[in-house]
Amino acid sequence: MANLTLHRHKERGSTERAVLDAILDDVLAGTLSTVVDGEPWVVPMLFARQGDRILLHGSTGAGALRHVAAGAPAALAVIAVDALVVGHTTFDSSANYRSAVVHGGLTPLAEDERQAALEALSERILPGRSAEVRPMTRQEMAKTLVMTLPIVDGRFLTKTRTGTASAPDEETDAWHGVVGLRTVALEPEPAPTSTAAEVPRSVRDFASARVLA
Amino acid sequence: MANLTLHRHKERGSTERAVLDAILDDVLAGTLSTVVDGEPWVVPMLFARQGDRILLHGSTGAGALRHVAAGAPAALAVIAVDALVVGHTTFDSSANYRSAVVHGGLTPLAEDERQAALEALSERILPGRSAEVRPMTRQEMAKTLVMTLPIVDGRFLTKTRTGTASAPDEETDAWHGVVGLRTVALEPEPAPTSTAAEVPRSVRDFASARVLA
Repeated sequence: MANLTLHRHKERGSTERAVLDAILDDVLAGTLSTVVDGEPWVVPMLFARQGDRILLHGSTGAGALRHVAAGAPAALAVIAVDALVVGHTTFDSSANYRSAVVHGGLTPLAEDERQAALEALSERILPGRSAEVRPMTRQEMAKTLVMTLPIVDGRFLTKTRTGTASAPDEETDAWHGVVGLRTVALEPEPAPTSTAAEVPRSVRDFASARVLA
Repeated sequence: MANLTLHRHKERGSTERAVLDAILDDVLAGTLSTVVDGEPWVVPMLFARQGDRILLHGSTGAGALRHVAAGAPAALAVIAVDALVVGHTTFDSSANYRSAVVHGGLTPLAEDERQAALEALSERILPGRSAEVRPMTRQEMAKTLVMTLPIVDGRFLTKTRTGTASAPDEETDAWHGVVGLRTVALEPEPAPTSTAAEVPRSVRDFASARVLA
């Protein structure tokens, strides 16, 4: 498949599952793409990997999402920009990043499979939260569309750039190096309607794991 | 066009250019999608808005990119996750985000238009850098493919969620609120081959603008 072949920078390509899993487990949002009437149809969304599949969810009222769930070929793309790479020239400047594209067909989950999937999605985004709140109701589950995208060898691609700026191939005194970027969490802020005395453990753990490192 | 219609959460939709521009000017990387042989073809990449168009670049050796540049219908999707929204239930949990999708046809830039476009791309990512280094050579420009995606009213969509968790519609003592997320820059790190005595102004400014706020 042409679209899974890297023509340049082959050293940045990897088909290793471990690399894919690490990217999918670290990035919160991606872009789901499919084809509608010959045109690209894309929507940014939250997702979660659960073993050998990716879980995606949306409202059952979303028409386009329903179309996608009906079996159209799809792809989920995610990217994390880890650093600016500042070269000795603009041509030699770049970014350190981790990206992944997973191709496959989407399958909507039947109602009896949704509870476990939605719990997995919630746990991926905010671990420990499910146990702190009441379970989802049958009505809430009926309102939520959950789709799965299988992770299959040969149907995904990862690309990574790491390290510092390349060594100049000319005389230069121009500074070159990297500026790392990190995602950090701010202090949890309760809503005005929240009467709980303490920030729950799931929220405290999430916030403290996302610090400057 | 069905794919630009919001069926749910219409209040999160906006066609305002100012909102679009703010998202495009704040997010460094997006996902470019098109259609190849009826299948979605997607690639995460850096981009820059320049007035009423989006600049994208890649190596002229990249076969798939050349295909896209040849006029296929395309879409660029970007998303920034600004906060976790922690509801009193998992069903009421969500994320604050800003997302944009811009549809259109890609046009490759002729060689004599590339210099200004590549300078604009570089300036968008690291303002002030172009003036600190030597200009790109003719050879470097020949190696770089630059494409433009026009920003046209009615061909883009933005979606934003802000604010805190929704007020519970039931009795609950479950904490609810938000945990903000920010991208911060680390200390600039020179490459081993960098002999410059000082971190240049462009790099200092970039790093100091991306602090915890």
